[in-house]
Amino acid sequence: MARREGFDCYCITFAYGQRHAVELEASRTVAARLGAKAHRIVDIDLRVFGGSALTDAIDVPKDRGQPDMQTIPVTYIPARNSIFLAYALAWAEVLNSRAIFVGVNAVDYSGYPDCRPEFIAAFQQLANYATKAAVEGKGPTIYAPLIHMSKAGIIRTGLELRVDYSITHSCYDPHGDLACGRCDSCIIRHQGFLEAGVPDPTRYAPPMGGSADRSRPPK
Amino acid sequence: MARREGFDCYCITFAYGQRHAVELEASRTVAARLGAKAHRIVDIDLRVFGGSALTDAIDVPKDRGQPDMQTIPVTYIPARNSIFLAYALAWAEVLNSRAIFVGVNAVDYSGYPDCRPEFIAAFQQLANYATKAAVEGKGPTIYAPLIHMSKAGIIRTGLELRVDYSITHSCYDPHGDLACGRCDSCIIRHQGFLEAGVPDPTRYAPPMGGSADRSRPPK
Repeated sequence: MARREGFDCYCITFAYGQRHAVELEASRTVAARLGAKAHRIVDIDLRVFGGSALTDAIDVPKDRGQPDMQTIPVTYIPARNSIFLAYALAWAEVLNSRAIFVGVNAVDYSGYPDCRPEFIAAFQQLANYATKAAVEGKGPTIYAPLIHMSKAGIIRTGLELRVDYSITHSCYDPHGDLACGRCDSCIIRHQGFLEAGVPDPTRYAPPMGGSADRSRPPK
Repeated sequence: MARREGFDCYCITFAYGQRHAVELEASRTVAARLGAKAHRIVDIDLRVFGGSALTDAIDVPKDRGQPDMQTIPVTYIPARNSIFLAYALAWAEVLNSRAIFVGVNAVDYSGYPDCRPEFIAAFQQLANYATKAAVEGKGPTIYAPLIHMSKAGIIRTGLELRVDYSITHSCYDPHGDLACGRCDSCIIRHQGFLEAGVPDPTRYAPPMGGSADRSRPPK
């Protein structure tokens, strides 16, 4: 979406001790495919503080059917998006960039406090004071173009922009580079494809002892 | 100052690729001396973005006499305090802490945008939205007790609290564990001791080919 607006894209990925570290390799593929001017993988280790299913040994919830959209999930990571955006703000200043895009979404998973519009607005305010660039009137605008979109809407928009969803997944607990199909994130993504009325090209792991049909999440 | 208020102190130091890495070792000594409940040194590498005399190969300015307090110094690091506070916010949440103390000062060095009261207020607003703790009404208050104090006032307060200044310095370009006495930060600190009317116990490096008098910065 940033590229469609004419921006040169500098992509940033965080290695934060996530158990789904396969996303780091995938991010290289995606950034290259999208024609990023540069891509940095920044090493930050949130395990030093502990406190989340995504970095600790807490089990990722599975097979919950329709996820509870109101409760903050155990997969919440303390202040994660604040840290991510603070790093992005630093790189934006070095690049003289006037825009930061972040893919948070408040519709399908309103439980994460740092995916809400109020949070993005507060970070914009912070960015307006935090940097030399901002003091000089050249600070960045924070864009969260997905924030109010449904998962189906996001998927349709991506297809218009020729995103190859087969090289991506959203899984919290992947098996190698295959999605589990059973965590909340996989379930929400698959529902998005169903609602969008398009095939789900996500590559799912086969169910335990089950079939090799990868066209749908294991039941 | 936090300890005087009755807080249990969990101290956080950042290894951010600073050339004055001796401060990391000093932080262990200081945290232990102050009776910290825990101390974490968090490894973050801002060199991945470049852009500051403190992490790049730009020379630290020396012998500038009275530093220019209005211009943003070349030692400014993009979004540094935003990143530091975002990490502190994460650890505070894991600890169920209600307070974050940060030692920024806006008087002696108003040139840093992320040392200003406006910045701290904006970060407080961010913290009010960013975390699960905040959503539950248990987020932290950001305290910056030094922000409006003069360097002399800070030094006097530290002495009241029995801070041993001989195990600390503020140098941007130390020689081993000795302060250079010539960078802006050393000059401002030394002036603080002069204005406070107390001896400066800072351990300074001898001047080039000069005397071994370490009771004052080299001229």
